[in-house]
Amino acid sequence: MPRPRPILATLAAAVLAIAAPPAAGQPLVPDPLPSWRDCGAKRALVDFVRRVTDEGSPELVPPAERVAVFDNDGTLWPECPVPFQAAFAVDRLRRRVEAEPALGRDPMVEALFAGDLPALLAGDHHDGLLHVVALTHAGETADDFRRGVEDWIATARHPRFDRPYDALVYVPMQEVVTLLRDRGFKIWIVSGGGADFMRAWAERVHGIPPEQVIGSTARPRFERRPDGPVLVKTLDHLFVDDKEGKPIAIHQFIGRRPIACFGNSDGDLAMLEYTTVGNPRPALGMIVHHTDAEREYAYDAHPPSTGRLVAALEEAPRRGWTVVDMRADWARIFAEGSPVGAASPRP
Amino acid sequence: MPRPRPILATLAAAVLAIAAPPAAGQPLVPDPLPSWRDCGAKRALVDFVRRVTDEGSPELVPPAERVAVFDNDGTLWPECPVPFQAAFAVDRLRRRVEAEPALGRDPMVEALFAGDLPALLAGDHHDGLLHVVALTHAGETADDFRRGVEDWIATARHPRFDRPYDALVYVPMQEVVTLLRDRGFKIWIVSGGGADFMRAWAERVHGIPPEQVIGSTARPRFERRPDGPVLVKTLDHLFVDDKEGKPIAIHQFIGRRPIACFGNSDGDLAMLEYTTVGNPRPALGMIVHHTDAEREYAYDAHPPSTGRLVAALEEAPRRGWTVVDMRADWARIFAEGSPVGAASPRP
Repeated sequence: MPRPRPILATLAAAVLAIAAPPAAGQPLVPDPLPSWRDCGAKRALVDFVRRVTDEGSPELVPPAERVAVFDNDGTLWPECPVPFQAAFAVDRLRRRVEAEPALGRDPMVEALFAGDLPALLAGDHHDGLLHVVALTHAGETADDFRRGVEDWIATARHPRFDRPYDALVYVPMQEVVTLLRDRGFKIWIVSGGGADFMRAWAERVHGIPPEQVIGSTARPRFERRPDGPVLVKTLDHLFVDDKEGKPIAIHQFIGRRPIACFGNSDGDLAMLEYTTVGNPRPALGMIVHHTDAEREYAYDAHPPSTGRLVAALEEAPRRGWTVVDMRADWARIFAEGSPVGAASPRP
Repeated sequence: MPRPRPILATLAAAVLAIAAPPAAGQPLVPDPLPSWRDCGAKRALVDFVRRVTDEGSPELVPPAERVAVFDNDGTLWPECPVPFQAAFAVDRLRRRVEAEPALGRDPMVEALFAGDLPALLAGDHHDGLLHVVALTHAGETADDFRRGVEDWIATARHPRFDRPYDALVYVPMQEVVTLLRDRGFKIWIVSGGGADFMRAWAERVHGIPPEQVIGSTARPRFERRPDGPVLVKTLDHLFVDDKEGKPIAIHQFIGRRPIACFGNSDGDLAMLEYTTVGNPRPALGMIVHHTDAEREYAYDAHPPSTGRLVAALEEAPRRGWTVVDMRADWARIFAEGSPVGAASPRP
């Protein structure tokens, strides 16, 4: 009869593996960030995570306060040639204009169909773009809208990469989300995009549940219908979750100051400041700088779409924010293969 | 040398205890609701929890969809003689009026000091009350406000029960919160009270983190100050989380339909409907009916304060909502002893 010791040892090891905190000073093995080259940005990330989560670290932050916020467009996936939600709006509008030709004479709808981005992006919060997005996002129930987004994202393809949009999330950023989550962080998306749009896929794609997706919103209308109450999307009380709106929304939705913030544009400046400046906790600010025209896009002061990055880039050295040089820091950007070479032109 | 088997058995039992789901059909032992008498309300609660969380139950609901929403005033603690936040506002106003006598001539401030509840409670959302609450809730930073609430709740005492306000949470409801949480539910407060007011104590008192506290809000202002950015409370874009506002806020904050809803007034009617009517999941609606003038208060159509309960009580049988008869269903209401007998008159 074999001695039970090996089983006991295995069980005990399993119990210990669950219970034991990672020892400070050891490298993170296996590497949780394999798509990051071993440069300054990756080291800053890993150092920060160790400082605030290693048992025994003098700067250990209690799990309840491990709040990480991520911008979406340009931070978790591309925002070119247009923000993906704008592509969704275009596809919806084309269908609606067939049924309601008058809609096609709206100046901003005309601009959209003509690809007149400057007209759409003018104004403090890209007012024209917001207008056409709103046109396609109001009047239906929240459930119907969600199904519409799910259908679209299952079928639409990105014009350059010829892949479904949700196949274009940045693998290095997904690794960061996973690392932080494994280290007890609660992960939030804080984006100018529509909350209802993002919630339709954020859980499936990023494992981020709807209650941790903060975006631009309008106040839906509660309606009692024969088969039960519904919420009908409206344009009332529009809240744009951009610039100063981001820390405001963070306060309203989360009620705690984040200790890690990831963005890529001046729209993220205020939440980067709110996260890192004067925070009694150690805090990380990180900016994804789009420097890779070959594999993705290269822009800062003059983006082809949204995502202007000037003020936040200037502030970065003074604030100690880490700037990710996409071309240098990311060994790969998208899942499976090199997107540019692999992408076949759209038929 | 003792044989290692007992250790192995202990370890294996521990592992199994962690892994094994509760067997369907067994009673919940130990009783998670000891402050509830074994009547219909308790049985409805336990039955519901078993239906949606017992492994093997045909109506098992995935953990991500186990969303429970609780009103606060009158549901988790009393709302008499005035909602506790109004008592906070009175105490603050008294101090402010000393410094700014003009404030004392505001008609609603006069009504407040005169105890003129009808004047304060008139209007769709108790407009006068909102006004004075707002007067004392704007102009300071969110951090300062939080400290003010913490100080107040540490020192103020309820006029009838002569205890700190946060010692008056209903023990039976805390047991429900704990039971649901232990069964994988995510617990939310959805209350007409101010979010910032409730967040100052909800985590300590109920274990509910700030991001799961939804309340009335105004949009704070982001200000850059020399020692870092702050959020200054304002009265802008006031959102009243009451009546139809509750399902609207649930959609905006949670993004999922709850499957359990606990309220006590017509202000909770819309969220009770949103939770239970036409929900493809099994859903529980529960109304705390204040029937115990001796141990707490007794009211419905004519409350001494907020908390009018007429329409929701009428709807309850048709909707299958469980009405808690506080006097009959709750073996005790507050922690430690009988509050009325034990309470010494305030000096």
